Amino acid sequence: MDLVTVRELYRNSSKYVDQKVRIGGWVRNLRDSKTFGFLVINDGTYFQTLQVVFGEQLDNFQEICKLNVGAAVIVEGTLVATPKAKQPFEIQADSVYVEGASTPDYPIQPKRHSFEYLRTMTHLRARTNTFQAVFRVRSLIAYAIHKFFQERDFVYVHTPLITGSDCEGAGEMFRVTTLELENIPKDEEGHVDYSKDFFGKETNLTVSGQLNGETFAMAFRNIYTFGPTFRAENSNTTRHAAEFWMIEPEMAFADLDDNMALAEAMLKYVINYVLENAPEEMNFFNQFVDKGLIERLKHVADSDFAHVTYTEAVELLEKHNDKFEYKVHWGTDLQTEHERYLTEKVFKRPVFVTDYPKEIKAFYMKMNPDNKTVAAMDLLVPGIGEIIGGSQREDNYDKLIQRMNELGLREEDYAFYLDLRRYGSTRHAGFGLGFERCVMYLTGMGNIRDVIPFPRTVKNCDI
Amino acid sequence: MDLVTVRELYRNSSKYVDQKVRIGGWVRNLRDSKTFGFLVINDGTYFQTLQVVFGEQLDNFQEICKLNVGAAVIVEGTLVATPKAKQPFEIQADSVYVEGASTPDYPIQPKRHSFEYLRTMTHLRARTNTFQAVFRVRSLIAYAIHKFFQERDFVYVHTPLITGSDCEGAGEMFRVTTLELENIPKDEEGHVDYSKDFFGKETNLTVSGQLNGETFAMAFRNIYTFGPTFRAENSNTTRHAAEFWMIEPEMAFADLDDNMALAEAMLKYVINYVLENAPEEMNFFNQFVDKGLIERLKHVADSDFAHVTYTEAVELLEKHNDKFEYKVHWGTDLQTEHERYLTEKVFKRPVFVTDYPKEIKAFYMKMNPDNKTVAAMDLLVPGIGEIIGGSQREDNYDKLIQRMNELGLREEDYAFYLDLRRYGSTRHAGFGLGFERCVMYLTGMGNIRDVIPFPRTVKNCDI
Repeated sequence: MDLVTVRELYRNSSKYVDQKVRIGGWVRNLRDSKTFGFLVINDGTYFQTLQVVFGEQLDNFQEICKLNVGAAVIVEGTLVATPKAKQPFEIQADSVYVEGASTPDYPIQPKRHSFEYLRTMTHLRARTNTFQAVFRVRSLIAYAIHKFFQERDFVYVHTPLITGSDCEGAGEMFRVTTLELENIPKDEEGHVDYSKDFFGKETNLTVSGQLNGETFAMAFRNIYTFGPTFRAENSNTTRHAAEFWMIEPEMAFADLDDNMALAEAMLKYVINYVLENAPEEMNFFNQFVDKGLIERLKHVADSDFAHVTYTEAVELLEKHNDKFEYKVHWGTDLQTEHERYLTEKVFKRPVFVTDYPKEIKAFYMKMNPDNKTVAAMDLLVPGIGEIIGGSQREDNYDKLIQRMNELGLREEDYAFYLDLRRYGSTRHAGFGLGFERCVMYLTGMGNIRDVIPFPRTVKNCDI
Repeated sequence: MDLVTVRELYRNSSKYVDQKVRIGGWVRNLRDSKTFGFLVINDGTYFQTLQVVFGEQLDNFQEICKLNVGAAVIVEGTLVATPKAKQPFEIQADSVYVEGASTPDYPIQPKRHSFEYLRTMTHLRARTNTFQAVFRVRSLIAYAIHKFFQERDFVYVHTPLITGSDCEGAGEMFRVTTLELENIPKDEEGHVDYSKDFFGKETNLTVSGQLNGETFAMAFRNIYTFGPTFRAENSNTTRHAAEFWMIEPEMAFADLDDNMALAEAMLKYVINYVLENAPEEMNFFNQFVDKGLIERLKHVADSDFAHVTYTEAVELLEKHNDKFEYKVHWGTDLQTEHERYLTEKVFKRPVFVTDYPKEIKAFYMKMNPDNKTVAAMDLLVPGIGEIIGGSQREDNYDKLIQRMNELGLREEDYAFYLDLRRYGSTRHAGFGLGFERCVMYLTGMGNIRDVIPFPRTVKNCDI
C-alpha cells in the first residue's frame, strides 16, 4: 500500500474514513498504558498532527511503548472518525513499523524551546511547530512570487552571483577567489596578481542583479530576478544577514506609477496566496508569534495604498519631531521610526513615498524636472517600515553620464549599462523586494535568523 | 490609452481587430518609400513581430523614416486583419512616438550573427530571435519545475550558498573572504588568520545543497532546492560553467523506485509544459537549432523510461567495446559515449541505470545487500546522456560511519548529517538536476554559455 500524506488525509478525509491507510512520520509525543497507547505523528506535509492508537495485540507492542520522541515510524491501520475528540479522526493501528529510533536526549522535546536555543541546531529546528510553519510559508511566498510574475508573462532571469564589477562599493562585498591565501601570487610591483585568479581578475559576490536585469528588460520588456545577494556588512542586527534572497522586477515602457501599481498588486497577491494556502500556519503565527497579524495583513490586502511625496512626508513629520530620536528635515534619509510613523499613525495603511532628494538615492534613478529629486519610491508598511524600494531609471544618456560624473563613477565600468541608453532606450522602472524581510512581514517573526534555513551572519556560518 | 503587449494581441486578436491599440517595442527592421513605410516591431513579450504601417500624414514621418534598427517606439493605431499577408494583422499607425533612437552601428543588425560574436555582448544578445527564445524557455522551465513540486506539496528550501564545510573537495571550490588579499593577516605560526575573516573561519561557495536539503526532508518529508551552485573546475568545455543552477529534491519515506518515479514524472511534466507554453520558440529551435528536437522530446514525454542495472548495462556495452574510445568493464564509470549508446541504440528511450559500484559513487549512497553496489540511479536521455543523478541515501548510522571511515572522512565534519541517522532516521532518496543541462536538452542549444544570461567560465566574468 502506498503511503498517504497527512495533508491528503485532512484535505480529503471523507475519502479515507473507515478505510485502511498507511502513513510515515515522526513521533511528536507518545503515551501508553499496559494494554494500549497513543502516538502523535507529524509527517511534515501538514501542520496538524495525527493520533495513532495502538494496542497490545501488536507483535512489537513493547517496542512501540519504548519509543522516544523523534522516532520515525510507518503506520498501517484504519482511519476512524472521532467526532467527540479534539482531532477529527485517528488511526487505529494494525501495525507500527519502526523505521528509525530516537533517543531520550533528542534535542527537540515536546516543550517550548527558545529561538536562541533552536538557532544552535538549524538541522533539527524545522521539526518544531514554529519553524515548520516559517519554512513552509517561506516556500509558499517564493512560489506565489513566481506565480504572480509568470501569470503576467514576466521572464524570470538568473542574474549572475559572481561579478567582476565592484561598482556598488567593494567594502561591503565578499571577495571570490581561487588564489591560495597562504601564498598569494604577486606581480612585479608587489601587488596581488589577479591574472592568476580563476577569472583572471578581481571578482566579488553580487549585491544586486538590477543592472543586469535592466539589460534583459530592454529585450523582454517585463522581467524579474529572484536569487541570492550578499552583503559583507559587519552589522549584527535582527534584520541583516550576509546572504539573503532578493526579487527585482524591471519593466520597460513603464514609469514610476506603473512601478508602484506592480508593487502593490504583487504584495496583495502574495498576502492573499499565503492566507489561502497556509491557514493553519498563519493562525499559529497569529496566536503565538504576532497577535493581530492576520487582521493587519488582511487590512493591507484590502487597502488602496497611499501616496505621498518625500517633500510632503517631511512636512508631515517635522510637526512631530519631538517624538523622534532622529529629527527630520528636508534632505535627511527617513529612519525606520519616521517610516513607521507615516504608515501607522498618519496614513494607517501602506504608503508609497516618492521623489526623494537625489543626494540620498542611487545614481541610476531618473532625475525629476525640478533637478533636485529623483523618481524613486519606497513602500512603507505598518509594523515594519520600508519593505520595497524602487525607481524609474534614468533613460537619458546625457543625464546619466552627467550624474555619473558628479558622483565620480567611471564610464568604462558601466559601458554595458550606457549602451542601453544608446540603443533603443526607453522609460523603464523596477524595484527590489528583500525576500527575508517579506517573510518576516508575513509571519511576524522578529529575527531574520529565524526565517532563513541556514542563516549566515557575522562570525556565523554553521552547517 | 494603456500599452497592450504583442503577446496579448496575438492571443486574443479578435478582441482587438479594428480597434485602436497602443504598443511599445523595438524596431527589428524597417523600410520606407516616399509616402509610407513599414516598421517591424518586437516588444519582447512574444516571439513573433508585429508590422506597423505608417504614412506621410504623420507629423514626424521623416523622423520615423530615418530610424535605425534597435530604436524604441510607442505606436498608436488601428489593428487591421491582413488575411492575404504572411502575418495575421498589422497596425496602421496614427502616431509613432520615438522613445529612444538607435544608431547605424547598432551591433544587433537584422542578419545572422554567430553565437561566438553574440557572446561578446551578453547585454544585447537577448534581443535576437535565438536568445529571446532561449531565455524565455529558460524562464518557463524554471517555473514548470516550481509548479511541479509545489503542486505535489514539496517545500522549496533555500540552502546556503556560502558554506563553512569543504567536505566535497576544496580544490574545486571558490573561496569567499573579506580578508584583504594585499595584506593577509597571519597567526603566530605564520598561517592565514581566518579568525579575522567575516565568518571567523574558512568559507567557500557551495557545490551542492543536498546535505542541507536532507535535514529539511527529515522535517517536511518532501522538499526541493533550486539555487545556484559553483565549481572552480578549470575545464573549458561546452558543458561546464563555474556558476550554474541546480534542482535537488529529497523525499523521506522514499526509496530508489520512488526517486526514479519522481524524476520521470518531473522531466515529462517540464517537457509538456514547455511544448504547450512556448510553441513558437520550440518550433524555432526545431527548425533552426536542432532538427528533430520536438519529435525527440515528445517521444520522451510519451515513453515509459527503461531500467537497467549498471551490471547489466556493462554486459550490454562490453559486446560493443570496439565502438568506444574508452573500453567498458565492470568498475569503470560510464562515459558519455557509453551513456548515449545505451539510451540511443540499445533502449531507444530514456533509461535509468541503477546500482553502481560503490567505488565510483559518493559516500552517502545506500549500500546494497551485495555490499559492492549502492542504490544510485542516473537517468540517461537520447542526445545528451546523463541528465539526472540521484540515490537512496544511507540511513543506517553504523553503515554510514563505516563508509566514512573507509573514505577517510572526519565524523566531526558531518556531525549534523550523522544526527539525522540518530534521531528518527528513515529511508530517503533524492536527485540532482543541473538546470542548464536541462535547458540545453529542451532547446537543443549546444553550448552552456548560450543558455546562461551572463555565463561565468574560466577567465570569463563579464558584466
